[in-house]
Amino acid sequence: MNFKINEAIELLERTPGTLSHLLVGLSPDWLTCNEGDDTWNALEVVAHLIEGEKVNWIPRINMILTKGESYTFPPFDRFSHLSNKEKDIEQLLLEFKQCREESLNTLKNKLTGLPDYEQTALHPEFGPVRLRELLSTWAVHDLTHITQITRIMAKRYKEDVGPWANYLGILK
Amino acid sequence: MNFKINEAIELLERTPGTLSHLLVGLSPDWLTCNEGDDTWNALEVVAHLIEGEKVNWIPRINMILTKGESYTFPPFDRFSHLSNKEKDIEQLLLEFKQCREESLNTLKNKLTGLPDYEQTALHPEFGPVRLRELLSTWAVHDLTHITQITRIMAKRYKEDVGPWANYLGILK
Repeated sequence: MNFKINEAIELLERTPGTLSHLLVGLSPDWLTCNEGDDTWNALEVVAHLIEGEKVNWIPRINMILTKGESYTFPPFDRFSHLSNKEKDIEQLLLEFKQCREESLNTLKNKLTGLPDYEQTALHPEFGPVRLRELLSTWAVHDLTHITQITRIMAKRYKEDVGPWANYLGILK
Repeated sequence: MNFKINEAIELLERTPGTLSHLLVGLSPDWLTCNEGDDTWNALEVVAHLIEGEKVNWIPRINMILTKGESYTFPPFDRFSHLSNKEKDIEQLLLEFKQCREESLNTLKNKLTGLPDYEQTALHPEFGPVRLRELLSTWAVHDLTHITQITRIMAKRYKEDVGPWANYLGILK
């Protein structure tokens, strides 16, 4: 196992700034392109990250810390953010930054008592899941969605790169 | 085709800042982990990006603009940067930022005469390649390597996420 709470927080702290650097000021076509029918664009990915801050990560951490295996997580609706279409990228990234700061402040307060990172709650599909697994997943979930955004944008140039497509695994 | 030179430059301008936000200040284990034998860590990926600025992109653009199909690109050694192991992430990212700024200044000067983006030179493996294809590839190459770095870091937690690995395609 490689999990250390301070190293996981290092990643979680960086994601809003990384995405702001990558996305703010880009031409609209970079922000609204997607990978085809029923796939997300960059704006929708950021809206999904905001939704996770509001209803997923901290509430589930709370359930592990306070209720343990007497409680099963409600399922997380991974598509609920798609109803929110009215914000531009600056507004979305500002909201994500604020939600993430709030989440991490809450997390740090909860962790001051040196909790047992192996304690569990029940996941509706997986059964018992550990606090360490949930925190690691939160960090990897961020990395997954940074990857998704760079892949979506790369695919916009799938035809434009010509024969170099053979060297660019991201386009496959 | 989606290529527009100003939109390609938007991506190329952002990569050094995006990577700085993602990487500077991270614990050493995030920067030195890799995906197994003969794979790169984040430091090596940034060193590879620097090497591309020095010997690949601008020299090849020059060849298309000045020599056309009378000239075949020399092959790009994609592993030459691995001999440079002495710089830390701040030094590497500063060098990348400076090299990229210089590349983009050179590029913008060369493009003031509204060049024909369909003009070609010979690639040693592919045959004729267009200026538009080379410029698109440069932008997608950046996105590929941002993706590579986030994937390398995600895989460090492959075991730690427990059953959530099933939901996280980046770990496969």
